[in-house]
Amino acid sequence: MSLPDRGFPAAEFKTRLTRAQEEMGRVGLDAILLTTEPEIRYFSGFLTRFWESPTRPWYMILPAEGAPVAVIPSIGAHLMGQSWIEDLRTWNSPDYEDDGISLLAEALRETVPDGGVIGLAHGRESYVRIPLADLARLKADIGQRRITGEAGILRALRLVKSEAELSKIRRACGIAGAAFDRVSEIAQIGVPLSEVFRRFQALCLDEGADWVGYLAGAAGPGGYGDVISPASETPLAEGDVLMLDTGVVWDGYYCDFDRNFAIGAASDSVKNAYRRLVEAVEAGIATARPGVTVADLFHAMARVTGTGEGASSAGRSGHGLGMQLTEWPSLIPADRTELRPGMVLTLEPSVDVGPGRILVHEENIMITEKGAAWLSPRAPADMPEFLS
Amino acid sequence: MSLPDRGFPAAEFKTRLTRAQEEMGRVGLDAILLTTEPEIRYFSGFLTRFWESPTRPWYMILPAEGAPVAVIPSIGAHLMGQSWIEDLRTWNSPDYEDDGISLLAEALRETVPDGGVIGLAHGRESYVRIPLADLARLKADIGQRRITGEAGILRALRLVKSEAELSKIRRACGIAGAAFDRVSEIAQIGVPLSEVFRRFQALCLDEGADWVGYLAGAAGPGGYGDVISPASETPLAEGDVLMLDTGVVWDGYYCDFDRNFAIGAASDSVKNAYRRLVEAVEAGIATARPGVTVADLFHAMARVTGTGEGASSAGRSGHGLGMQLTEWPSLIPADRTELRPGMVLTLEPSVDVGPGRILVHEENIMITEKGAAWLSPRAPADMPEFLS
Repeated sequence: MSLPDRGFPAAEFKTRLTRAQEEMGRVGLDAILLTTEPEIRYFSGFLTRFWESPTRPWYMILPAEGAPVAVIPSIGAHLMGQSWIEDLRTWNSPDYEDDGISLLAEALRETVPDGGVIGLAHGRESYVRIPLADLARLKADIGQRRITGEAGILRALRLVKSEAELSKIRRACGIAGAAFDRVSEIAQIGVPLSEVFRRFQALCLDEGADWVGYLAGAAGPGGYGDVISPASETPLAEGDVLMLDTGVVWDGYYCDFDRNFAIGAASDSVKNAYRRLVEAVEAGIATARPGVTVADLFHAMARVTGTGEGASSAGRSGHGLGMQLTEWPSLIPADRTELRPGMVLTLEPSVDVGPGRILVHEENIMITEKGAAWLSPRAPADMPEFLS
Repeated sequence: MSLPDRGFPAAEFKTRLTRAQEEMGRVGLDAILLTTEPEIRYFSGFLTRFWESPTRPWYMILPAEGAPVAVIPSIGAHLMGQSWIEDLRTWNSPDYEDDGISLLAEALRETVPDGGVIGLAHGRESYVRIPLADLARLKADIGQRRITGEAGILRALRLVKSEAELSKIRRACGIAGAAFDRVSEIAQIGVPLSEVFRRFQALCLDEGADWVGYLAGAAGPGGYGDVISPASETPLAEGDVLMLDTGVVWDGYYCDFDRNFAIGAASDSVKNAYRRLVEAVEAGIATARPGVTVADLFHAMARVTGTGEGASSAGRSGHGLGMQLTEWPSLIPADRTELRPGMVLTLEPSVDVGPGRILVHEENIMITEKGAAWLSPRAPADMPEFLS
């Protein structure tokens, strides 16, 4: 299988910028200020795991007209200098007196007219990666310019993926799928769950992951208590259901799906619950097509799982996916977002299988002109059993 | 080697809380509101990679007296329910109308007297993981209570590590050290750097890492351009210096150090630069003891590397380490923090070896009553050469 290209052509970044600028014009913003990893990467291609360090702030200005301005620590100059961004301003960070704020304020005064309006993330699922004290200082340092919300422009843009983005997500899904196909190599009775987690991550790397950005899971008799826990040291036992949920990263894009495995023979109730989850995903996929809403997908799956309108403890039955492990929208009854070609979603129904025990199944799809297409390799219709 | 215990006894969390409450009393705060992963984990032990999902907010209140209150999405109830936290309030998130804010406001109104003051992270290296619109709503919903900065209380607490914390960091360092000892297995001429990165992460897992939270590095003829880049597809070539900088995680604690390797014979200038870096680290360690300042460490190393007072492009020559890949303080001339037993630091000097080419060396130490002790296994005094 030939790999997709890494990175993006400059034309793709220019298209993203143009679309953002069209929306900025529509809502009356003179610039958008970006502060977080996915925001800055979306417009620059700046890909590094260095964001794991919380120390230094990173800023980018998207003016309503003209080219973006990156205002970043000097440690990033070499890497950002390889991107399509030409206006690059750096300072030696950390600077305890002024960690980039006066440089950022100067750039905003240049790119935004006095009295102008600067958009900053402020809505659902967002945060601002500026210390609050520095945000106050910035506001005081930009004259009559005003900072307000960015009107959901970034969310709307990132919701629909390009062909190049889709190819990266597809590749991440393929890597995780190949690793899931090898779980029988690592998950035997008596192996501690922590060791299964370690070896599964090694399988993902062996299959081509750049890194394993996310792994959670659980194992328990006939089901498990949650889907977000780290591994325990408890050994796998006959009758356990093992679930692994992974987000492997390829060129900065995630997959996010899980697989369930019966350790030994599965009980009828577990088999039935698993089949119901697979059928729920099938029902979601059969429903998915442009114009249908995200809520419709929720209901299509809820009808099969029998969970009705009430939210499970997970709070939703799927979500968007792309540069981040989870992106908007959320598959909940309140989400009326209409599906559009190029959207990538996870379908993630869950069922109760006993007191404090659930099963969760998850697949990744993309919306096409005609309906939905699989991104993750389809799970088996019946729960895999590892019989010793 | 016997592994340290996972987790912490409840007594350790109680000690952390008591210390925070003493400081809160001293500065006049009635509560501190926590919103980020390390803050909440520090006081609860809540360890999950699920924070990779940006969707859901998570909150915890530390009242000036009494027990913490966790206000979290229901998806986290099962895991948080296993912690020492008893006052646990959940809602089904995501909720587009009210994503926990009214529940959080209610808890604040209960725990903080009217007219009281609530501390929230606002200084250096901090951010607040609340959408700005929700923060405004929260402020409007807590009556006469006022939100202000948390006066650096969390930073001061986390600066000094407990024995249990130190044992976890030591374990992470040991795992990375064992993986670095095996780099000759994976780094041969002709192997693409991306493949070296993948295989190195697998080595870290094989040696016992829970996950590899960070890996950056580079390879280039006689040096490299930066230390934050992801892997390129370029194959290793004779004359390259390969650098790998990793933060492996064990039970939620990081190491952060690098190693340099010459692919083929190293030039004299590379050998000399490497020796200078090792000597700079030695000078830092020789200087480190309680009462000395962080700036003193910077100067001790700068005298050896010859970089003087000017910052390198990295902006600092080391930093704190623990629950996060990088923590305060920063090794810069402006940082007058006095060293205290239990502090963990990286020493990370760099030297220029040509136009746009640097070498960086990094080790991890802890401050003891008598001086400093190694946490990372000491690097060889001369640059390792992989001769084919």
